[in-house]
Amino acid sequence: MNYQPTSEDRFTFGLWTVGWQGLDPFGDATREALDPAESVRRLSQLGAYGVTFHDDELIPFGSSDNERGVAHGAGVAHQAVPAGAGRDRHEGADGDDEPVHAPGCSRDGAFTANDRDVRGTRCARAIRNIDLAVEHVARASTCAWGGREGAESGAAKDVRDALDRMKEAFDLLGEYVTEQGYDLKFAIEPKPNEPRGDILLPTVGHALAFIERLERPELYGVNPEVGHEQMAGLNFPHGIAQALWAGKLFHIDLNGQSGIKYDQDLRFGAGDLRAAFWLVDLLERAGYAGPRHFDFKPPRTENFDAVWPSAAGCMRNYLILKDRAAAFRADPQVQEALAAARLDELARPTAEDGLAALLADRSAYDTFDVDAAAARGMAFEHLDQLAMDHLLGAR
Amino acid sequence: MNYQPTSEDRFTFGLWTVGWQGLDPFGDATREALDPAESVRRLSQLGAYGVTFHDDELIPFGSSDNERGVAHGAGVAHQAVPAGAGRDRHEGADGDDEPVHAPGCSRDGAFTANDRDVRGTRCARAIRNIDLAVEHVARASTCAWGGREGAESGAAKDVRDALDRMKEAFDLLGEYVTEQGYDLKFAIEPKPNEPRGDILLPTVGHALAFIERLERPELYGVNPEVGHEQMAGLNFPHGIAQALWAGKLFHIDLNGQSGIKYDQDLRFGAGDLRAAFWLVDLLERAGYAGPRHFDFKPPRTENFDAVWPSAAGCMRNYLILKDRAAAFRADPQVQEALAAARLDELARPTAEDGLAALLADRSAYDTFDVDAAAARGMAFEHLDQLAMDHLLGAR
Amino acid sequence: MNYQPTSEDRFTFGLWTVGWQGLDPFGDATREALDPAESVRRLSQLGAYGVTFHDDELIPFGSSDNERGVAHGAGVAHQAVPAGAGRDRHEGADGDDEPVHAPGCSRDGAFTANDRDVRGTRCARAIRNIDLAVEHVARASTCAWGGREGAESGAAKDVRDALDRMKEAFDLLGEYVTEQGYDLKFAIEPKPNEPRGDILLPTVGHALAFIERLERPELYGVNPEVGHEQMAGLNFPHGIAQALWAGKLFHIDLNGQSGIKYDQDLRFGAGDLRAAFWLVDLLERAGYAGPRHFDFKPPRTENFDAVWPSAAGCMRNYLILKDRAAAFRADPQVQEALAAARLDELARPTAEDGLAALLADRSAYDTFDVDAAAARGMAFEHLDQLAMDHLLGAR
Amino acid sequence: MNYQPTSEDRFTFGLWTVGWQGLDPFGDATREALDPAESVRRLSQLGAYGVTFHDDELIPFGSSDNERGVAHGAGVAHQAVPAGAGRDRHEGADGDDEPVHAPGCSRDGAFTANDRDVRGTRCARAIRNIDLAVEHVARASTCAWGGREGAESGAAKDVRDALDRMKEAFDLLGEYVTEQGYDLKFAIEPKPNEPRGDILLPTVGHALAFIERLERPELYGVNPEVGHEQMAGLNFPHGIAQALWAGKLFHIDLNGQSGIKYDQDLRFGAGDLRAAFWLVDLLERAGYAGPRHFDFKPPRTENFDAVWPSAAGCMRNYLILKDRAAAFRADPQVQEALAAARLDELARPTAEDGLAALLADRSAYDTFDVDAAAARGMAFEHLDQLAMDHLLGAR
Repeated sequence: MNYQPTSEDRFTFGLWTVGWQGLDPFGDATREALDPAESVRRLSQLGAYGVTFHDDELIPFGSSDNERGVAHGAGVAHQAVPAGAGRDRHEGADGDDEPVHAPGCSRDGAFTANDRDVRGTRCARAIRNIDLAVEHVARASTCAWGGREGAESGAAKDVRDALDRMKEAFDLLGEYVTEQGYDLKFAIEPKPNEPRGDILLPTVGHALAFIERLERPELYGVNPEVGHEQMAGLNFPHGIAQALWAGKLFHIDLNGQSGIKYDQDLRFGAGDLRAAFWLVDLLERAGYAGPRHFDFKPPRTENFDAVWPSAAGCMRNYLILKDRAAAFRADPQVQEALAAARLDELARPTAEDGLAALLADRSAYDTFDVDAAAARGMAFEHLDQLAMDHLLGAR
Repeated sequence: MNYQPTSEDRFTFGLWTVGWQGLDPFGDATREALDPAESVRRLSQLGAYGVTFHDDELIPFGSSDNERGVAHGAGVAHQAVPAGAGRDRHEGADGDDEPVHAPGCSRDGAFTANDRDVRGTRCARAIRNIDLAVEHVARASTCAWGGREGAESGAAKDVRDALDRMKEAFDLLGEYVTEQGYDLKFAIEPKPNEPRGDILLPTVGHALAFIERLERPELYGVNPEVGHEQMAGLNFPHGIAQALWAGKLFHIDLNGQSGIKYDQDLRFGAGDLRAAFWLVDLLERAGYAGPRHFDFKPPRTENFDAVWPSAAGCMRNYLILKDRAAAFRADPQVQEALAAARLDELARPTAEDGLAALLADRSAYDTFDVDAAAARGMAFEHLDQLAMDHLLGAR
Repeated sequence: MNYQPTSEDRFTFGLWTVGWQGLDPFGDATREALDPAESVRRLSQLGAYGVTFHDDELIPFGSSDNERGVAHGAGVAHQAVPAGAGRDRHEGADGDDEPVHAPGCSRDGAFTANDRDVRGTRCARAIRNIDLAVEHVARASTCAWGGREGAESGAAKDVRDALDRMKEAFDLLGEYVTEQGYDLKFAIEPKPNEPRGDILLPTVGHALAFIERLERPELYGVNPEVGHEQMAGLNFPHGIAQALWAGKLFHIDLNGQSGIKYDQDLRFGAGDLRAAFWLVDLLERAGYAGPRHFDFKPPRTENFDAVWPSAAGCMRNYLILKDRAAAFRADPQVQEALAAARLDELARPTAEDGLAALLADRSAYDTFDVDAAAARGMAFEHLDQLAMDHLLGAR
Repeated sequence: MNYQPTSEDRFTFGLWTVGWQGLDPFGDATREALDPAESVRRLSQLGAYGVTFHDDELIPFGSSDNERGVAHGAGVAHQAVPAGAGRDRHEGADGDDEPVHAPGCSRDGAFTANDRDVRGTRCARAIRNIDLAVEHVARASTCAWGGREGAESGAAKDVRDALDRMKEAFDLLGEYVTEQGYDLKFAIEPKPNEPRGDILLPTVGHALAFIERLERPELYGVNPEVGHEQMAGLNFPHGIAQALWAGKLFHIDLNGQSGIKYDQDLRFGAGDLRAAFWLVDLLERAGYAGPRHFDFKPPRTENFDAVWPSAAGCMRNYLILKDRAAAFRADPQVQEALAAARLDELARPTAEDGLAALLADRSAYDTFDVDAAAARGMAFEHLDQLAMDHLLGAR
């Protein structure tokens, strides 16, 4: 079987992924900087659909209008990637890139920095970046990762105040795009920790709950990242399912993570392979229409000969898993096993005729046959082994 | 200083805490069963304000009306605890206690069991338990821990369907108490895993988000447990702060946990002591009015000579930490340090005069002095050392 | 491809695995007790090579000689399993099964219990169990899991004293089998926690280091369990490699675990599938000659219809992974990729001609071409993608 | 009480601690570089006993002899710190600092790099660094952290080969110092992961076991770091106790870590405060004679106004905990509680008269009073509450 991606697969990559130079807290870069245009060209050749970028990756901060033109040129360049590169992500509220590389300006976050003037400038800057995104990109959505919004010690942040400030900032952005009539939504990216000891809105759940308290909740959704939820030991497909259930899966960051440890950003498929399988199964069954966005880092051990194959591996693994998940769902034995495990019953309301009928139903209480219920096994192990067989291509 | 609890401290204990017999997955009980009346008496003597109980702890399932009278007698007994024992918790939707101890009836959860008839009977039973709670207890709130709502394997549970069923069940309960005019609310207790491989609504955030999708969200809040959030490596005070911020902290389960591992239920203060300090600081500053409910297990190594001192230790540690947190907040040097760390600025809106004023404020963008901002340190380390000094009683 | 196990695969199962009744800290049993003879018969039919058992599973404690005969009959029964059931494991020093089910006798461990008389009786009992094992089983090895050797609080155990006692106990056992001329060795099973807050000898590394301090280190090795190392977030194949490197892999417990949480004992292959692949690759390449022993629990959701397929799944998954690992190693492209990643160079000594030659080698210091070295990538990503392709059966 | 450190406390700091500039994977430096001489002066004023440094911190790589003189001058400078700064640590085998900052030269570790020439140059360089250490420092010990010795993917490293190479390298170093007659030992620093996905010798246990396989095991010990063991969820005092029990605690790195996540390097006392208490209690009771070395990072939020107080906080917290631990041990009620918990019995041999006497002792088996043993509680909770009271200064 051929697992060659096409633009219909809607695979996108952050420019910062293939462009990561390998610098980490314990060592220097191991790769040279990449020309963004080169990245766009190479990713396009591999079958990617588009690229995404951070605020300043294409448009150097403080650049004149003329320089912006150059940046726009770069923007055009990645429109060579079919169907519109860069349309899907523009990180406007990111707390971790320094605006003009003055050391420490974002020591303590952006929207929830204790310093009021820092918050003011980060809000103003986020708004201006929205203008740039809308100007340069046909349809823009903005992903916000508040990576520096957090604390290492208990008194450093009054979290209730910080959530007030976070809400204020997102409400300002929402008010702005509404006033301007922009067709733009925001996807909040949760993360439990790193680089802060604890980050606000640490999981998909916390972000979903926060959104409900915003003035225009309809403008906001989540952008979960595989590794971020797994850094809290959470089941990633379960989190995605709750986001889908809430109608809030606006974007997704695909990568790999080997359990609870530092943020690894392995290529998709590496790390917890079975979770990746169930994730692809879920996204495809749910008809998720957004891009499949890879936010990974080719390991620091590699040189450029490996960067592009590593990116290709992300897409290949997605396609293999998609194929296997489809075969799993189509297998008559699996369908029997799903019925044996009563998945169909789970899809039916418990009390189709409402509360009164339930209360009147003696079989639900007095005559309920506990012994019969207890004797039933759930038949989950057989079902899971079928899934394993399909995943391994062993059927 | 005397750290003797009184009823004003509103300390409550689950009957199942001191009554835990020490049975675990690898060994048998090490303590005999306790008479609930004895537990009530002893806890009252120690200064506790009330007790809480699971569905069947006082009223044996299947008991006749006369037996219920006996159970009611036990209910009277714990009213000897000043101000109303047992009023604050009644677990009605708990998935992990078997209704009539038929093996396996709750193999797969209660409200989200794949088996429709199991869901039906669990909903019906939860409703009947609400009646009993209201009958026997002056003011009832019900905590629901869906400990068996989850899965060990990927296809066993369609999580979106399961959330539909969970919503249906809680909506039925809400409809019932509304129709009956009961003054009763529900507190959902999140947990990431154990006894299921992954539990639905794994964190405070997921539960808060779920509540927003219910038909009567005002009836539902959360009942976070220290150890449950810490089993996901999350900062417990941060989660409580978000629950308070959302107006949803209906109840709280206090205990100790030593990091990411099995559910330990250590006495309060054991485990992450600094997190306990910040938690007490938060609850007291926030004016949390609910009970301080201990859900701990005296370790299996202990006999009854140690059970009561262990319970007393929970309360003592809370009171010591409360005393230290108050001293911390009252210390003029701390107040200076909080100002130096600009906590006052965090409490102020970023854009007091709104969006237009922010956009017009040149200092927020063009003339923002990045270098001056970057030169400022946040002064968090000094503040945190002051907190350490207060916690350790070293000032 | 047919993945039918035979006795040559040397798959063994603990009787307590298929016999687990589903009791957990939050709920009662969901399955009836199994007759050991039935387990032996069924496992044999599935293709297992043997069974293992805990001290008292076949020979009830306190039984008369006549009862021992019955037990011996049961012992004979599992010799119906080809090539000698029960020969490979006999847990003699296990701290978690109560000798006569008197509550609490093992509250605090066996060999490191603070109570001297408890330690004495556990040592004496372990020795008597060795006699029984030798009497009933042709060639016995004994696995010791010190699951209750540990603590929940800091002063409860002086760990240096406890290690003295652990050493004393294992030295006594070693002295006994040496005096008796028994051909019997001991395999220590590490675990980081559960049921104790922290268990002594928490990882393969700690156990290996401990063994070196025993009087007869040659008699002792390790019995690592997949889930136990993964409960500490450690790479299981790396731990096994170090045990093999030290010549100390005496036995292995195969199962599955989904990350850092309570001890799950999933069937082999579930949990971290990629780690399972590398484990099988390692065991097979290393020529590990011991049994492939499954120590898993069919989930509590299942009834007996699922218990046997779940056990079969353990073996099937091992065989699939073995097949895939063999194909991976045989693939010429993989061999090229291994050479490109310089695995052959890793296998060569760094200083084949010794220290003096290294110091005299100017190319190792003065003329070393740093830039050339730095330009080389390690080519690990390509290699890992080939492994992924083989694992998924996608080549 | 005054908690002012003196040189007798033997507190030392890595120059890289106060000198850390705040660069992390997500953001740039927030502090300027520090002059090492300034660091030495300031730390000395605070009461530190000495400083430690990485290979190239004082002696720039590639410097001429004259430049070495300058470096030596700096070396003299920290001899102004009483009793010999820099004598205690010299990292010679560190895999994560690039020799001449050529990108990528240490992509894959030092002693276990797949590239044979890289291993050769790293061994040669380590040996030359030993010469420099001996030349510049009166009594040198060398700590080796193999932070890059590891892998992110399964086939990238044959761990058995890698352990052969690690052994070869340490044996070469041992041979060299033996031949030269240097009074120098090596302390291996374990870490489970970061910057590599999995690091070889991930815990204290693995390092202790590895050392036993070296040619001159007496030359090697461990240098455990608080946060490193806690990144694997392990009990740090337990690990230290095993290292002490093995006579192998050569050095220690003190800092703080909030559970299983990225390497935080908080100041000592932050993170798990109770573990810090038990650690200090253990080190002081054990008469550990080495330096108390702080390997922490003043958080990136801080400027230099906070760096020195943060360093002072490390020492202050140690002294407070030392004071509290001493009071705990001296308290007659604690001594009673320790006796009640039978710690004295744990210190006695189980079978003082040997194996034959144990086997002859009918009370150890036949007449053992199980019921009496089972009735005893361990009295650990009371003991632990006394410890809590002492820690909190609440007695």
